[in-house]
Amino acid sequence: MPDDSPAVPTLAVIGGGQLARMMAQPAIALGLPLRLLAEAPGVSAAQVVVDQQVGDHRDLEALRRVTEGCTVVTFDHEHVPTEHLEALEAAGIACRPGPGALVHAQDKAVMRARLGALGVPCPRNRVVADADEVAAFAADGDGFPVVLKTTRGGYDGKGVWVVEDGEDSAAAFAAAAEAGVQVLAEEKVDFRRELSALVARSPSGQAAAYPVVASTQRDGICHEVVAPAPDLDPDLATEAQQVALRIAGELDVTGILAVELFETRDGRVLVNELAMRPHNTGHWSQDGAVTSQFENHLRAVMDLPLGSPAPRARWTVMVNILGGERPVSSLYAGFPHAFARDPHLRVHLYGKDVRPGRKVGHVNAYGDDLDDVLERARHAAAWFRGDLGEESE
Amino acid sequence: MPDDSPAVPTLAVIGGGQLARMMAQPAIALGLPLRLLAEAPGVSAAQVVVDQQVGDHRDLEALRRVTEGCTVVTFDHEHVPTEHLEALEAAGIACRPGPGALVHAQDKAVMRARLGALGVPCPRNRVVADADEVAAFAADGDGFPVVLKTTRGGYDGKGVWVVEDGEDSAAAFAAAAEAGVQVLAEEKVDFRRELSALVARSPSGQAAAYPVVASTQRDGICHEVVAPAPDLDPDLATEAQQVALRIAGELDVTGILAVELFETRDGRVLVNELAMRPHNTGHWSQDGAVTSQFENHLRAVMDLPLGSPAPRARWTVMVNILGGERPVSSLYAGFPHAFARDPHLRVHLYGKDVRPGRKVGHVNAYGDDLDDVLERARHAAAWFRGDLGEESE
Repeated sequence: MPDDSPAVPTLAVIGGGQLARMMAQPAIALGLPLRLLAEAPGVSAAQVVVDQQVGDHRDLEALRRVTEGCTVVTFDHEHVPTEHLEALEAAGIACRPGPGALVHAQDKAVMRARLGALGVPCPRNRVVADADEVAAFAADGDGFPVVLKTTRGGYDGKGVWVVEDGEDSAAAFAAAAEAGVQVLAEEKVDFRRELSALVARSPSGQAAAYPVVASTQRDGICHEVVAPAPDLDPDLATEAQQVALRIAGELDVTGILAVELFETRDGRVLVNELAMRPHNTGHWSQDGAVTSQFENHLRAVMDLPLGSPAPRARWTVMVNILGGERPVSSLYAGFPHAFARDPHLRVHLYGKDVRPGRKVGHVNAYGDDLDDVLERARHAAAWFRGDLGEESE
Repeated sequence: MPDDSPAVPTLAVIGGGQLARMMAQPAIALGLPLRLLAEAPGVSAAQVVVDQQVGDHRDLEALRRVTEGCTVVTFDHEHVPTEHLEALEAAGIACRPGPGALVHAQDKAVMRARLGALGVPCPRNRVVADADEVAAFAADGDGFPVVLKTTRGGYDGKGVWVVEDGEDSAAAFAAAAEAGVQVLAEEKVDFRRELSALVARSPSGQAAAYPVVASTQRDGICHEVVAPAPDLDPDLATEAQQVALRIAGELDVTGILAVELFETRDGRVLVNELAMRPHNTGHWSQDGAVTSQFENHLRAVMDLPLGSPAPRARWTVMVNILGGERPVSSLYAGFPHAFARDPHLRVHLYGKDVRPGRKVGHVNAYGDDLDDVLERARHAAAWFRGDLGEESE
């Protein structure tokens, strides 16, 4: 090892959610100090990162303070304003991903235009200004229903409407007007299922593609992921990985890029959404891959050689734990049954208060028999959610 | 899940070394808050546990402060005085392991007497008061050499002497007198190799036994571990696990118990040392087992059902990274080569300053081919140590 080793760098992380929290685990192993900008004291990642500041990711001064002495900054989310990222870069801080890449995860119209120019297969789409333009968009294709999305600010099913006619689109335009953004119309794809292709990419251009997974949404929120996607045509899997690698390269993404895809009934893949950070559809990798998406995100943004994304088990299933309708004072109380029932179960909790519909953790199960793995993961997640009333009496 | 769930408990951890640091990773996943008593600011675990106090583990008031509001306390090391543990227990704090168990890891004379009474196979041994008693001990057996150990305070080869005659024992008696402890004489076992049997045991009495591993020492410090021990007779492996489970049960150990064993050339196992905490010979489990020793330590001391200790790979090899003779300003500089050479390599650094002979991290490698796994792990550890001079020019 060279003697002129640099000192250990500190990585700044903006945002204190569960993604930053889960970056902290591989950061411990790598001996990589993190410095966190948390939106409030005691949020998910602030519980586990010692070097932390509280501040707003829209406040340039807070961003400058937290990156002081750092050479690299990365993100728990995609909400830091582009102009702030540009100011940090001008000050010599490497933003990973950078503003030029991140805008494609922030603005769906920009993303659609760019992917269209690259020839990446996407649902038919058009920015629309009013109900008449929605109707015209529908008429130019297969008619209604049409999907409307605000171009910025949506997540987990928020900011998305499926409309049956032009008049139905008022809510979307009202939300867009209130947020000062546009509305993007997209064909409603007749999909067989949703897939996700994750890649890690470093500033040097090294890239690693995880196996393509199948994801199931409930109420617009990722609910369940099966890795790899069962019965996926190998050519289509390769195409999905190639699409993700190509997007990562063309957009100069650094860190994790998640490409959410529709698998159509006629055997194509169309890009649905992009995320430029560790992604819910990659949580399986914590227990199911040689190198987790969180470790590879750190290695990518620090421009270290990437770890193998190869699976360690035939099947890995992730199921999210969402806050249920029944009051649950603590997820901790779910451990005795969940762990006693399944000594192979892996549980990841986020340290968040349980509220209905809120993502508060996830479970991973792996093994050779998909039915068994699915049953174990689903049971455990339902148990933590409080949905198994009979057993909890 | 029951609605009358208790709030999440906080686990107090005494000692800020790398074992506490590596407990922090599964604590994040389990959503289990840790409160650390660190011996100094910025030590290994203090870099990664938010809720921390600085204090001396020999100071009862410091122990009382750090355990305030906690129901359970556990340990990074075995050095907390017995009377302090008893005072904490009297105040309603569950010490895991408790003072009655821990004394067997603190005092080798107590340990030998207890294991002897239990009929657990051990090297022939006797507490000796002077050189004449050493000579008498030798004469009663196979003669010299004889192993002398201080009954308390030794670790990593410190406090151990191999003597060729009675006069040679002066250093041991001087060290013992200075420390106010006794000297234990033991036969020098003609061993084929050293084994280690790790078990996790909960206060409820549930126990899980990890596969028996082979460990190699260098200068009295654990250097390399192969899991499982190659070519180990299955009956002997079972016997080693049974010995560890029996000791854990009889001594009422809670948390991880490591039983270091000699495998004799005539096919027996003899207990060498006991450790009641996650142990260097269990670090392989972080990447090689379904549940790491660190997670099972937390689950055991919190009396949660234990996770499976089953191996995930045919072979897992751990090699320690020790500070080398050549100055190395940062282990971080070892990543580019180590990770580029082996995308499957797992690295665990402790955030410690590099000093010659100091344990500053370890690597894990796993796979189907033991020779390949050994080569990969040894190369990486040597690289981080700075021993591969030619390649670093």
